[in-house]
Amino acid sequence: MSEARDVDGAAPRMSLDEVLAFLEREFPQIDHGGRSYHLEAVGPLTARMRMDHHERHLRPGGTVSGPSMMALADLVLYAAILAQIGPVGLAVTTNLSFNFLRRPGTTGLLAEARLLKLGRRLAVGEVMITAAGSDELVCHATGTYSIPPGHTVS
Amino acid sequence: MSEARDVDGAAPRMSLDEVLAFLEREFPQIDHGGRSYHLEAVGPLTARMRMDHHERHLRPGGTVSGPSMMALADLVLYAAILAQIGPVGLAVTTNLSFNFLRRPGTTGLLAEARLLKLGRRLAVGEVMITAAGSDELVCHATGTYSIPPGHTVS
Amino acid sequence: MSEARDVDGAAPRMSLDEVLAFLEREFPQIDHGGRSYHLEAVGPLTARMRMDHHERHLRPGGTVSGPSMMALADLVLYAAILAQIGPVGLAVTTNLSFNFLRRPGTTGLLAEARLLKLGRRLAVGEVMITAAGSDELVCHATGTYSIPPGHTVS
Amino acid sequence: MSEARDVDGAAPRMSLDEVLAFLEREFPQIDHGGRSYHLEAVGPLTARMRMDHHERHLRPGGTVSGPSMMALADLVLYAAILAQIGPVGLAVTTNLSFNFLRRPGTTGLLAEARLLKLGRRLAVGEVMITAAGSDELVCHATGTYSIPPGHTVS
Repeated sequence: MSEARDVDGAAPRMSLDEVLAFLEREFPQIDHGGRSYHLEAVGPLTARMRMDHHERHLRPGGTVSGPSMMALADLVLYAAILAQIGPVGLAVTTNLSFNFLRRPGTTGLLAEARLLKLGRRLAVGEVMITAAGSDELVCHATGTYSIPPGHTVS
Repeated sequence: MSEARDVDGAAPRMSLDEVLAFLEREFPQIDHGGRSYHLEAVGPLTARMRMDHHERHLRPGGTVSGPSMMALADLVLYAAILAQIGPVGLAVTTNLSFNFLRRPGTTGLLAEARLLKLGRRLAVGEVMITAAGSDELVCHATGTYSIPPGHTVS
Repeated sequence: MSEARDVDGAAPRMSLDEVLAFLEREFPQIDHGGRSYHLEAVGPLTARMRMDHHERHLRPGGTVSGPSMMALADLVLYAAILAQIGPVGLAVTTNLSFNFLRRPGTTGLLAEARLLKLGRRLAVGEVMITAAGSDELVCHATGTYSIPPGHTVS
Repeated sequence: MSEARDVDGAAPRMSLDEVLAFLEREFPQIDHGGRSYHLEAVGPLTARMRMDHHERHLRPGGTVSGPSMMALADLVLYAAILAQIGPVGLAVTTNLSFNFLRRPGTTGLLAEARLLKLGRRLAVGEVMITAAGSDELVCHATGTYSIPPGHTVS
């Protein structure tokens, strides 16, 4: 489709350090109450983020809450898009869909994001969340982001 | 369907005060950093919850963050199910899907939940979130909850 | 939001007859094997469509198949958007999400669509599907459609 | 989680031929108007299905319709579950969610399904649909299926 950018395999426009600096400057509220989301890597159409275990993310039974995982998925997808297209405008989340598969227990989480499409107007990606030190999927998410009209890709 | 309970129009089993007491006891983490989610009403297959404006819910541009709205939707659906079937077991979120429609700005939010189905094993509901004092929808959510097997409805 | 059109309460740009003529001309494949989808009404941000009972829509146990309901939901949302903005370009489905609530049995279906947002670039709507002659919801759907860039609303 | 079956890596209970025979017997309506869905392989928690190009699957511009892709995704997920747990009861679709990524053009499609969770009560899977002879994803789907209570896994 002409709508899709020819980005497969293309290197991201921002390095991990650049994305980290951008997020720290623009999203200081993320770590309200103590830092817990850590972007670990960005690559071609991918990003990886770790979430520390923290009391405020817990639910009855000592498991990580759904909303903490939803925030994690949204952030890591946002980071993957940001890294790939650069800080030219703020992508806006239009749709997020989650399947909660297993209770993660009292543990940190690892989120791996992959963009399935990066078009001129929309980006779509999926996220696999596992408990730290385990291969078992605890949550699968998909997200759609609207990319600002002014944005041009050379 | 035989799977669906005959609940249409049935009064909830718990009063607003009972649901509030239950949530306070079981989910003290919700209000980490200051109380902001307020259940205002429960009715037959419905619940209404208000979210205060608070600094930690904000995103760049001063708008309420997606994850804050996702937590709100999950909580109000949970409250609607809890009120209807009583505290006989903890319903588990299996799927949540969100459409973010407009940016809410710097404001409190109002969430109206309605259960579309309350079966023996699954409950499905939708949530409409508006900015306080406005009719405009900022987010629409649907959620599915698994109801523990041991639970029986007389 | 500036992105949202000021369409609430606005009359649709096309009449029911105009939408029907457009669909017949552009989507002749819909009724491959016998006509079964009938658009019954369009209104401000709404549309209603009926689906006849037909052997080819059935699944084991004699119930209407999921895919038949999915096609119905997609069509009625498409018709609601088309009526509202006029035949200025083809909206493209970007996301559809379905909750199947009850088995409809061997019966026709009625789908009521409502647009929750009609922006310059995206339209989002929901669909309630009931079995003919019943109030019970058999399926709830939400859909997102991308509106062609060339399209302008005066 | 105790709810999840220990199925990772387990061989499916039915062979490809057994699943094909079951589908032909139970879902003769699928191929109303000419056979077009072909299950090609089943494996541990996976299945692959091909959809032929056929006039009745087309939409304006000659592209494969969304509903044809939705039927394909539902069928291949159903086949993956059926193969894995055997014909002990009919799994019921409770949720399907689709992201349409690119227009597939006038071509056959290939769908690869993978189960992300196979619990006692719910199975969740994802499907990647590509145009035949291409690596580009045209649609991504996730689905949840309710597994009949009577079903026991030895």
